[in-house]
Amino acid sequence: MDPANSGKRLVIGQSGGATAVINASLVGAIRAAHDAGAIDGIYGARYGIEGVLGRQVLDLQGIRDDDLDALACTPSAALGSCRYRLRAGDAERAVENLRALGADYFLYIGGNDSADTAHQMALAAQAMNDDLRIICVPKTIDNDLPETDHCPGYGSAARFLALAVQDSALCTLSMPSHYPVKIIEVMGRDAGWLAAAAALGKTREEDPPHLLYLPERPLRREEFLDDVRTVHAALGYAVVVVAETVRDENGRPLGEVGHQGEDAFGHRLLSGAAQYLVSLVREELGLRARYDKPGDLQRMSSACVSTTDRAEAELVGRAAVRAALDGATDKMVTLVRRPGPGYACATGLADLERIANTQRPLPDTFVTANGKAITQAFRDYALPLIGEPLPRYITLDGTPVTW
Amino acid sequence: MDPANSGKRLVIGQSGGATAVINASLVGAIRAAHDAGAIDGIYGARYGIEGVLGRQVLDLQGIRDDDLDALACTPSAALGSCRYRLRAGDAERAVENLRALGADYFLYIGGNDSADTAHQMALAAQAMNDDLRIICVPKTIDNDLPETDHCPGYGSAARFLALAVQDSALCTLSMPSHYPVKIIEVMGRDAGWLAAAAALGKTREEDPPHLLYLPERPLRREEFLDDVRTVHAALGYAVVVVAETVRDENGRPLGEVGHQGEDAFGHRLLSGAAQYLVSLVREELGLRARYDKPGDLQRMSSACVSTTDRAEAELVGRAAVRAALDGATDKMVTLVRRPGPGYACATGLADLERIANTQRPLPDTFVTANGKAITQAFRDYALPLIGEPLPRYITLDGTPVTW
Repeated sequence: MDPANSGKRLVIGQSGGATAVINASLVGAIRAAHDAGAIDGIYGARYGIEGVLGRQVLDLQGIRDDDLDALACTPSAALGSCRYRLRAGDAERAVENLRALGADYFLYIGGNDSADTAHQMALAAQAMNDDLRIICVPKTIDNDLPETDHCPGYGSAARFLALAVQDSALCTLSMPSHYPVKIIEVMGRDAGWLAAAAALGKTREEDPPHLLYLPERPLRREEFLDDVRTVHAALGYAVVVVAETVRDENGRPLGEVGHQGEDAFGHRLLSGAAQYLVSLVREELGLRARYDKPGDLQRMSSACVSTTDRAEAELVGRAAVRAALDGATDKMVTLVRRPGPGYACATGLADLERIANTQRPLPDTFVTANGKAITQAFRDYALPLIGEPLPRYITLDGTPVTW
Repeated sequence: MDPANSGKRLVIGQSGGATAVINASLVGAIRAAHDAGAIDGIYGARYGIEGVLGRQVLDLQGIRDDDLDALACTPSAALGSCRYRLRAGDAERAVENLRALGADYFLYIGGNDSADTAHQMALAAQAMNDDLRIICVPKTIDNDLPETDHCPGYGSAARFLALAVQDSALCTLSMPSHYPVKIIEVMGRDAGWLAAAAALGKTREEDPPHLLYLPERPLRREEFLDDVRTVHAALGYAVVVVAETVRDENGRPLGEVGHQGEDAFGHRLLSGAAQYLVSLVREELGLRARYDKPGDLQRMSSACVSTTDRAEAELVGRAAVRAALDGATDKMVTLVRRPGPGYACATGLADLERIANTQRPLPDTFVTANGKAITQAFRDYALPLIGEPLPRYITLDGTPVTW
């Protein structure tokens, strides 16, 4: 027990789109607080900053150890999450409310928007001469946070999609005369990290997925139809991965049919790209097509969690508590890949100002020149993140018998 | 080695929609043929009966044992599958082709339509005074074959959906103010076996899924909207499972937008029910909604395979070989649940005539009177089929702190 921490109180919140491992970060933080000794209050804010502003907080001190084990394996944000953009006075009120609770440390598990919220709170605390320590814990399936090698949540979503494409493509391959074209719609907002991950199970040129359409590049109708026609002519089937946010050459979202307005951060909320492309293939190429839209399953699937991802999610939660206890504030924990053979990550710290509202694009070196396939550089980057090797599938293409 | 089988040849085909465990049945048949001794030819028909008619066959005798292990864990139909309805003369030609290859036994792994194909072939063989033995191996995620307790393939799809609904619902529950309504679209043709399975993770009245819409009953627009409004008012969110084949009170498929005509068996091919309901909820109730359409993932997911289902798929493949060697023909292997505490299944045999083109509906006792929830009787029936218990998830709804 460190007497310096005696009587200290910690509040933890979860924010933004949930992941399959965001609760592992919560568990990491709780366990690090237990380990630190003498932190005598651990609280969870309900629905992120909304629970801080609305004084909705749960006491997390007494959770049993076996419940913490189960919580680390429970997908989604068990405290509840939010997409709330701070209004004038909110940051100061959040700091005041935390102070009134006796909080010394505030941990916020989230992505770009959450970093912005935490940064504004840190600025407010500074202006108020309040020494509340505020640390962000990275979390997003979109993998688009700067300053960190990757983001907890991404590895599991990547594993889900790599497996999903392999599994679903085998279905298409088993009956190409019936439904030769499969479209799989994936998430990823403005960056193609997830769409690229969908190709991680591919080892040969002819393996699925045959075509990727990333959100960074326009999907041109005629080019798309030519692409599908060419793959189908060569292989007898075609498996296509499309980001749900992809746009045509005029910047119009393909999924305009399912357009649902904007969220509090001005992100456009879209759906329907795959359904549109299925119709296009049918009407223009005369080929039967179907689509899978795993939707929230790709961010939530407990069966496809990457063990590496879960361990790192817990790691960054622990590191955040240690950083706060060490006096850091206005920072986000980062993952720093160690050089050398084999894969290992340490943690670091980055200024929130450099992360808030900033997105990291997929590097050009991670996709081929036409943007429709991944490179070895991306495989080297991403394969360690998805955990255990993908299962070895058997194809029966042995010697035909003639008689 | 049994001299009675000396020089015998076995041909195996896979037919209809693939499953995550149909290759386990193939592996069971190959291993039983090895075990029988002196079956000196094991062949796999490419694309089911199409490969028999078109003389496209692979030699399966020499597959290595570790490849058989991996094949049993490879989803989809590794030989290729088909949806082919026999035309005049096809049954006779299939028998002749098999005979010309020296085949004594033909195993057909499939569902209702495949049973019809095999039955016609058995009748043709009988008329031709040919003693080719023809045995079907049950396979369908739809679980709608008569005469068998359940169908290999169903348990794994049921496990996928039970998990998917729990996982995806946790995402909705984490941010009900953002997207309070979730629609999950599932397969199942004309029977609600799969939609019902999506509720297997539910233990309390307030747990998701809150509403099931099975294909057996019309989905009435106003009633649906009332249902969702009521659940949302009570719980703050609503998770809905809808069969992709559900129809309105006029018999019109909800997913008419995605209507793609009919397959060779006159089955209507539909998509789009969930997308339609999302629009309805948004426009009529003013609630934001999103949908997951796992599509072929629900039949293919290797990560969600039920260990019970895989073991039984191999069991029925083995039983089919033994039945053929014993001289049976024109039969399908069935699963027979043993009475008593604990779960166990033996295999039996049923006449193909009783199975061909016949569907087994979901019993009325398996759903509540309004058809929107499952009963304990269904839980007792289905839970053993999905293998390992579902993971224990933690919800944090402890004592709120006031300050």
